[in-house]
Amino acid sequence: MKKSLHFRSFFETTPWHKTLRKTLHFHSFSSPPSCTFLGPNLPDVWIPKENNTSPHTLLPQSFQWSNDGHSARIIEGKPIAKQIKLKVADEIRKMKSEIGKFPRLAVVLVGDRKDSHTFIHVKMKACDKVGIGTVVSELPESCTENELLDVVSGFNDDDDVHGIVVQLPLPQHLDEERIMNVIRPEKDVDGFHPLNIGNLAIRGRKPFFIPCASKSCIELLLRHGVEIRGKRVAIIGRSKIAGLPTSLLLQRHHATVSLLHAYTKNPEQITSEADIIVTDVGIANIVRGDWIKKGAVVIDMGTNQVKDSNSGVFRVTGDVCFDEAVKVASAITPVPGGVGPVTISMLLSNTLDSAKRAFGTN
Amino acid sequence: MKKSLHFRSFFETTPWHKTLRKTLHFHSFSSPPSCTFLGPNLPDVWIPKENNTSPHTLLPQSFQWSNDGHSARIIEGKPIAKQIKLKVADEIRKMKSEIGKFPRLAVVLVGDRKDSHTFIHVKMKACDKVGIGTVVSELPESCTENELLDVVSGFNDDDDVHGIVVQLPLPQHLDEERIMNVIRPEKDVDGFHPLNIGNLAIRGRKPFFIPCASKSCIELLLRHGVEIRGKRVAIIGRSKIAGLPTSLLLQRHHATVSLLHAYTKNPEQITSEADIIVTDVGIANIVRGDWIKKGAVVIDMGTNQVKDSNSGVFRVTGDVCFDEAVKVASAITPVPGGVGPVTISMLLSNTLDSAKRAFGTN
Repeated sequence: MKKSLHFRSFFETTPWHKTLRKTLHFHSFSSPPSCTFLGPNLPDVWIPKENNTSPHTLLPQSFQWSNDGHSARIIEGKPIAKQIKLKVADEIRKMKSEIGKFPRLAVVLVGDRKDSHTFIHVKMKACDKVGIGTVVSELPESCTENELLDVVSGFNDDDDVHGIVVQLPLPQHLDEERIMNVIRPEKDVDGFHPLNIGNLAIRGRKPFFIPCASKSCIELLLRHGVEIRGKRVAIIGRSKIAGLPTSLLLQRHHATVSLLHAYTKNPEQITSEADIIVTDVGIANIVRGDWIKKGAVVIDMGTNQVKDSNSGVFRVTGDVCFDEAVKVASAITPVPGGVGPVTISMLLSNTLDSAKRAFGTN
Repeated sequence: MKKSLHFRSFFETTPWHKTLRKTLHFHSFSSPPSCTFLGPNLPDVWIPKENNTSPHTLLPQSFQWSNDGHSARIIEGKPIAKQIKLKVADEIRKMKSEIGKFPRLAVVLVGDRKDSHTFIHVKMKACDKVGIGTVVSELPESCTENELLDVVSGFNDDDDVHGIVVQLPLPQHLDEERIMNVIRPEKDVDGFHPLNIGNLAIRGRKPFFIPCASKSCIELLLRHGVEIRGKRVAIIGRSKIAGLPTSLLLQRHHATVSLLHAYTKNPEQITSEADIIVTDVGIANIVRGDWIKKGAVVIDMGTNQVKDSNSGVFRVTGDVCFDEAVKVASAITPVPGGVGPVTISMLLSNTLDSAKRAFGTN
């Protein structure tokens, strides 16, 4: 059977289909295979409400808008990201002066995807600013799996490299799982290696790295004094990059976590009971105001390009209908400027941590 | 800080405290430490309803008992376990006649815990019946970590051993995490190695082994034709052995999973909305009839020793108040005779799978 799982870069836009709400849509290649213990591999195809880019059109009449002028506190990511970057830069300066060494991140890029090039550029620029050295290996779209594995293995064996990032998605002909498993868990600064995910899942265990988007989520919650223990959390979306590890991490913080996905029926019934909502869907405005309990905290991990129907200009938006949510939630992250900047700073932080471990200075 | 996580054998009874309902109780050693990204290590101390061993005493007046004589279908584990064992035995017979080889399970036991001896005895007897060879290494309570590691490493390197089980819990002076991580994931028939747990968590990935209790849960649901995809599942309890991996596995089957634990407030609000309830608590009768939605399916993974107040005799019971649940649920596993027998058969099945992989006959 064709592997139906696809990996989505955290910043990548997932195309969505305007079809009737709550009607499940299966790709032709995903007709339910025979059930194994691990369950059938099915793609997460989300069916948003119709006309999701235009807020305020589908709210049920029963939904009570706040008329008290309430507006949620905005959880700005940029100042937090700045603080983290300053701290990382400061530590690296000290590291250089004390032991004459500094962290290095290796980035592997296959093919010519414009978005991948952009993400790599952003990461490298951020590294440069804080004093993390970078080395980039660009491979042609046509490269073989063994060529790519050789590059990764080279970085694994290079003591001067402390973190390895293979930019996803990889071209179809490459076995992503095989490539990602080759990265040494000690250098897996993205935190996607199954050993790191396993150690994140098991209470009491310590992964070498926690995925950056999940660390960003916790950082934003803790810095804003949001209590997590005992709270009900609805995580919408279960990607390996954000939703899944965030569900595991929030569980470690003793939240009661419900993990929602494309096969969840009436997700708004669950989200509207949650104290904290985290979204990782990749569909603009899928989370409406009536999905949110009054006073809930909303962390929007989505990054979607939406074309303005009037100007024709594309703008970046999250998974949450911000204009509606801000009237209901007690606090909310904006998109852009919320989770994204902190996520980048966490990559720097993870790379620094790795170097400290390698230098024995942690 | 003292490690507060403790591992509980699937069949082990957890003592519980009769205190006021919904009042959280913290051990003195678990005063909240400073929050790290991974969250504070806190023990799961469950506070059951008062007088949990006597059903029918605490039901709210609003709760409507079924008066239609409804009684849930009983999901018997024994016949399913028997079928699996017969199939395993049959495959091993063929394996022996065709290639002259058979699976072997190594069991490591440290100390003199009576319950551990009983579990080991049950496992070995089951192995013997289906033709799996066993080798047991018993170490004294006072053994050093290195002595234990040597034993495990020996089994790792022994090509005639296909599965390794280290009976938990280990004595306090041994670092359980270190020991368990040494077991080669390819021989980790319990499925507890973080690499196996990580590959269970990540959709599209294949762990070498799935923990036996979780496989048992899926087996019981599938054999009884219970639809999992899109269903709301409440898992009560998050042990590494049962609750956590079952939450990951049911998510792979596209259920919407909520993972409840000792810090969950009003767990009955969540369970009463669930289509499937799985319990892994270790407290007799903690799940009452009014926790269950009419028509829900209940999988009881608890195994608790309860003293009968009249006769003084101990009997085995689950986490669910069976007498109440049977009037509400559409199907329910009994304790004993439900999940337990199938779990044992899954250990045999995992060991056979491992041998087939080693012999190249899978």
